[in-house]
Amino acid sequence: MTSATPFLTAIVEADLALMTENLKKLVSAGHPILHAAADHLFGAGGKRLRPAVVLLASRATMPDQNLTAYHRSLAEITEMIHTASLVHDDVLDESEVRRGIATVHSSFGNRVAVLAGDFLFAQSSWYLANLNNLEVVKLLSRVIMDLAEGEILQGLNRFDIISIDAYLEKTYYKTASLIANSAKSAALLSGAPEPVAQDLYNYGRNLGLAFQIIDDIFDFTASAEVLGKPVGSDLKSGNLTAPVLFALEDYPQLEKFILREFAQEGDLEQTLSLVKNSRGLQRARDLAVHFAHTAVENLAQLPASVSRQALINLTEHVINRSS
Amino acid sequence: MTSATPFLTAIVEADLALMTENLKKLVSAGHPILHAAADHLFGAGGKRLRPAVVLLASRATMPDQNLTAYHRSLAEITEMIHTASLVHDDVLDESEVRRGIATVHSSFGNRVAVLAGDFLFAQSSWYLANLNNLEVVKLLSRVIMDLAEGEILQGLNRFDIISIDAYLEKTYYKTASLIANSAKSAALLSGAPEPVAQDLYNYGRNLGLAFQIIDDIFDFTASAEVLGKPVGSDLKSGNLTAPVLFALEDYPQLEKFILREFAQEGDLEQTLSLVKNSRGLQRARDLAVHFAHTAVENLAQLPASVSRQALINLTEHVINRSS
Repeated sequence: MTSATPFLTAIVEADLALMTENLKKLVSAGHPILHAAADHLFGAGGKRLRPAVVLLASRATMPDQNLTAYHRSLAEITEMIHTASLVHDDVLDESEVRRGIATVHSSFGNRVAVLAGDFLFAQSSWYLANLNNLEVVKLLSRVIMDLAEGEILQGLNRFDIISIDAYLEKTYYKTASLIANSAKSAALLSGAPEPVAQDLYNYGRNLGLAFQIIDDIFDFTASAEVLGKPVGSDLKSGNLTAPVLFALEDYPQLEKFILREFAQEGDLEQTLSLVKNSRGLQRARDLAVHFAHTAVENLAQLPASVSRQALINLTEHVINRSS
Repeated sequence: MTSATPFLTAIVEADLALMTENLKKLVSAGHPILHAAADHLFGAGGKRLRPAVVLLASRATMPDQNLTAYHRSLAEITEMIHTASLVHDDVLDESEVRRGIATVHSSFGNRVAVLAGDFLFAQSSWYLANLNNLEVVKLLSRVIMDLAEGEILQGLNRFDIISIDAYLEKTYYKTASLIANSAKSAALLSGAPEPVAQDLYNYGRNLGLAFQIIDDIFDFTASAEVLGKPVGSDLKSGNLTAPVLFALEDYPQLEKFILREFAQEGDLEQTLSLVKNSRGLQRARDLAVHFAHTAVENLAQLPASVSRQALINLTEHVINRSS
């Protein structure tokens, strides 16, 4: 197996491989209609960032013990929730491709996509309840609401020139909430005291913000091939992210292209070009680095361990990855 | 206010009115995009069968006490889950109307419909976790899975001539599971002992099956005006229900129309007419009456009370309603 996640420890690689196999089985069990979708969803070489954080946070908060079935289940649940939200996002955005492969909704139709997403959300709620920890149930239920909230905010704010704070709020709902709350949940399942759980929450929140900001930079800088979707897709759909929001301070004339929703020939191309010439990309990157560094600081109270080091390495990987 | 639910006690009428107002507020709070959908969803004169069962089961299992905030929240949760599943079903089925008014997906588009359904499911999970009762969380999470399972089964079995047992299994997932598990949950929140909770589960299961069978009869017998959708909609979409499954025993020639999916001119009309001439409708009704009677028997161990009597009246209403 070639490693898709070279920043991880070998042991977490093995955990992740087990998790992926398990997820495919869980989702496709008895349902031919979902079987194809499950292979598609969990075989697509996703980054598996969320379960990696859960598994590492689990190990880092109980260094000398084995993972419990609850920890492994939590890792699966986070990937289920994430995948469910991707499948429904693709319906919402009418995306044709994600990670370079056709989306569930374009391959199997809206019907299967809505159904597969509902089934994954439902299954995640069910596995969640069976973790037998009411606090964890609350944390992850809140995440599912946050994801819906994030989509709604994103829909409401299309082509709105929002503040960086509003951008970060949207980004928390969309991406950081799941990572923060699942890292905290992993600590709670390890029996860690509240301040440690809170450190893991903060780590996850800051890592998640850094991760999403870097993703938002890729919308401007990566090739369509690497992105697996057209360059500037987010921008074109009116999802304004850090690079363009910062670029507006250098080039106020961007506002007119945005407010007319790139309706005139060349608007989108000019905007992409101005953003690249501005300090927007660098300032966005600086912001991501700031959150990544803060995430490392959040781990200061954890005892040194291979897993804690892997969590630190993960912040660097998130910043320095090329896709 | 004219009563949409004449079989209920005045006190539960008041509870339901409060619930409906509360639901509209909860769903639309802060979200213009959902505000219109919320009015649409909860103002449409739905039957509110599920929260009525919860409120009555709550009162019947603690006759001399006031409803707690948890009981009221459970009633809201059941209506949220039910409404979420309707909104997504309408996307799946591409329905244009429900209860005689335009569906969310036809009024506001797929985007809002998927989002509104996700938000309602998410919100129900969140309120569920806040009931602070792990057993109730498990019961209702199972329901959300059952609903997804029911939709999948219904999709897989389109135009399949299934047994009555398979029909009842599908009906349990689609309709009875929510009523059964929420009635049981109401009893658990009242602190009722396990056998009483199980009686309420059985009551809800049997009431739910009776309710859905009668609904399935309406697909053949009611006017389009009363149905709020074209006559024979389920049949046409390949969702084979009790009346046609029983009718097949009288008229085996129905099989050919079904297997060719009503592709030839007049197939659907001939099928509707043969079902009406067969014993199918009466046998389906007998089956519904059987489940309604069993539901009444399930209440035998409950102490006599106004609410217990209202639960009994509800079984008669479910059988004798005209829409």
